Amino acid sequence: MTDASRLTATEAARDIAAGKLTATKLMEDCLAQIAARDGEVRAFANIDPDLALRTARAVDAGKLGGKPGKSLAGIPVGVKDVIDTADLPTEYNSPLYKGHRPRTDAACVAATRAAGGIIIGKTVTTEFATRFPGPTRNPRNLAHTPGGSSQGSAAGLGANFFPLAFGTQTAGSIVRPAAFCGVVGFKPTFGAIHRGGMRVISESLDTIGVMTRSVADCALFMGALTGRDYGDPSAKPARAPKIGICRSPVWDKAQPETVALMERAAAALAKAGAKLGEVTLSPAFGDIVEAQTHLSGREGFAALRHEFETAPHMLSETLRTRTGNVTRQPLERYDWALQVQKSCRDAFAAAIGDVDVLLTPSAMGEAPKGIEATGDPIFNTIWTVLHVPCITVPAGTGPQGLPLGIQIVGRMNEDKAVLAWAEWVRQAVG
Amino acid sequence: MTDASRLTATEAARDIAAGKLTATKLMEDCLAQIAARDGEVRAFANIDPDLALRTARAVDAGKLGGKPGKSLAGIPVGVKDVIDTADLPTEYNSPLYKGHRPRTDAACVAATRAAGGIIIGKTVTTEFATRFPGPTRNPRNLAHTPGGSSQGSAAGLGANFFPLAFGTQTAGSIVRPAAFCGVVGFKPTFGAIHRGGMRVISESLDTIGVMTRSVADCALFMGALTGRDYGDPSAKPARAPKIGICRSPVWDKAQPETVALMERAAAALAKAGAKLGEVTLSPAFGDIVEAQTHLSGREGFAALRHEFETAPHMLSETLRTRTGNVTRQPLERYDWALQVQKSCRDAFAAAIGDVDVLLTPSAMGEAPKGIEATGDPIFNTIWTVLHVPCITVPAGTGPQGLPLGIQIVGRMNEDKAVLAWAEWVRQAVG
Repeated sequence: MTDASRLTATEAARDIAAGKLTATKLMEDCLAQIAARDGEVRAFANIDPDLALRTARAVDAGKLGGKPGKSLAGIPVGVKDVIDTADLPTEYNSPLYKGHRPRTDAACVAATRAAGGIIIGKTVTTEFATRFPGPTRNPRNLAHTPGGSSQGSAAGLGANFFPLAFGTQTAGSIVRPAAFCGVVGFKPTFGAIHRGGMRVISESLDTIGVMTRSVADCALFMGALTGRDYGDPSAKPARAPKIGICRSPVWDKAQPETVALMERAAAALAKAGAKLGEVTLSPAFGDIVEAQTHLSGREGFAALRHEFETAPHMLSETLRTRTGNVTRQPLERYDWALQVQKSCRDAFAAAIGDVDVLLTPSAMGEAPKGIEATGDPIFNTIWTVLHVPCITVPAGTGPQGLPLGIQIVGRMNEDKAVLAWAEWVRQAVG
Repeated sequence: MTDASRLTATEAARDIAAGKLTATKLMEDCLAQIAARDGEVRAFANIDPDLALRTARAVDAGKLGGKPGKSLAGIPVGVKDVIDTADLPTEYNSPLYKGHRPRTDAACVAATRAAGGIIIGKTVTTEFATRFPGPTRNPRNLAHTPGGSSQGSAAGLGANFFPLAFGTQTAGSIVRPAAFCGVVGFKPTFGAIHRGGMRVISESLDTIGVMTRSVADCALFMGALTGRDYGDPSAKPARAPKIGICRSPVWDKAQPETVALMERAAAALAKAGAKLGEVTLSPAFGDIVEAQTHLSGREGFAALRHEFETAPHMLSETLRTRTGNVTRQPLERYDWALQVQKSCRDAFAAAIGDVDVLLTPSAMGEAPKGIEATGDPIFNTIWTVLHVPCITVPAGTGPQGLPLGIQIVGRMNEDKAVLAWAEWVRQAVG
């Protein structure tokens, strides 16, 4: 029998429903990949293979989540380690939380289990999903970062450790690592997934999202979590899209491989029949990057107040320095940031006109060398602050042979359209 | 020496700073009140008097929070039991969480301690801050409800168990119980206090607020928590306010004592020099009450998914029925509710014109008899959904001799003005 770890969740669910694959076999194959490669990739913060296998056997025995209509029945899911699980530790990649065991599954974990999904383990996060990295390496080249903060989820997908994973994004923590690892990362409209049981840092920004190896899997996973219809991205749309090429207010940060990719993508999309236009956001949108540092810094200090008061020496110097740089500034800067967010959110739909979606870089370029830093989220921040849905899909490789991604962005609550056009773009750009 | 438990926080902080009162004496007097009356009032879900006293002695010894500039040094604070504390259980008034001990203080608790405040105990909440009540009674008449969901905080303030407390509001859970118990309840602008470590039910509505026995104490407490300037509500303003009398879209629910209070208040405010006008909100605002049930019901089901999946029989029938009534309806109703919230939020500032604040009922009337239900939040829901600051101040008594409150409402982020005019109104209405 072939190696089931390579299957997407949609493929695996179809095969399980058809009796061609068991949850046990799928889990065994994923665990085999993990046994073979996680020593070097280090995607997991905590994993209990026996528990995962027992759960898979229970699904096969119809004892758990294996009922018809359970859309994720038997599918292994990686959970970023800022999201609580009742049966595995949740440590936020902070020494303060070594062995911490929450009493309750996070809302999104409970919804995953209710749909038949199996939590295979906790994936490495940067410290509290901020900047200080964990030990995870890029599975496509171990000398490079997988990105962050959802680094274990991205690397684990790239290494076929699981077909679905949770990420969270405050700046670029889903889209950037997904792009660096050659997988799909979807940040839905702000608020789509309840944050209960997640260690929230920025209340105004933090968004739970899904990471996968196909766009269709995003629709499957999001639908299972929310009960909404996210459509069938693999179905061919009746028309070609109108796409706004948005080089974004930070285009000067694009590396040559990104500049080349945007040109290649535009040509491929035009050839495939898309109507293309340029969308230039007004300079006001350029304030968003600065605004984001105030929102995340101030709210992050409030969120981590207990830790800052009781054990500041157990926080990384990176976190302390970055937080201090913001909290030393007057509160008026935070109020300004909230105002930037509000005015840009209000202006966004009109600013992009009648396009279906925007096309914009997923990251500055390929994954940087080294694992001491996770790369710059500057091409992601704007969309996070705007609360709009965005997704990265794989789009070839760069000069070092590392994956590139390209980002599709939509309006608030147009998540279904974003997924549909993202798959269309992926196929066209190839 | 007089009984310090009757002091407001502002008075006690001044006396402690002046060396006329110790934190230990203040705590002893509060604990004496608790020993005398909490057997019948039942404001506390958990209390550790020895820990509270030890902490007070440490403050007096300068070992903890007693440094100059600690604005809450030695002040006892009650914490609603949906907010995590590292040194006392946090049980959400659910049998599922008996003895539950979070690892970390909630963000607002950590901020309280950083300002020198002493957590005196956990105050009774309704089940997960929804409707099913706890055992708390109204200290002004034990046969009556103290309101809810922040029932222990309101009752404990009314009984002089502590001068400051936290509440949370999803519909009317701060303002209503404060009015019923004759104390002050302030729901600040949505997002003013970080919800990290609170058991959030509705992400789009839940707001942490402060409960006190004076308006000045709200400014003191809010300032300590956020580092912002909430002004000095006891200072006499240079002019009289322009107040919009807003009977609200649910005026038909006002009981006779509330109708009479609004008339008496308007006359007293006019006599004191206020400019009065009528503010009638458009019928669109009338949709808010229905919208709130969808927001809180849908988001509540997501938030409590773990409990609904693993132990539904341990949830109250009230909670299961109310949640089921919402989740059986199509998701489009939730989307409609979000749209109502957005359009009304966008329209609110223009709708109230040039008034400084609105004056509106705090509740339908006096606290209802019995403790099986906590009263109707219908006069509070609208302001919670709008995310605007609102406060109730005591305004005499009703036909049964129970307290009445009157509510002052402002625009987003005009919290300081709301506090200033609330004190002005309180003095004028008397």
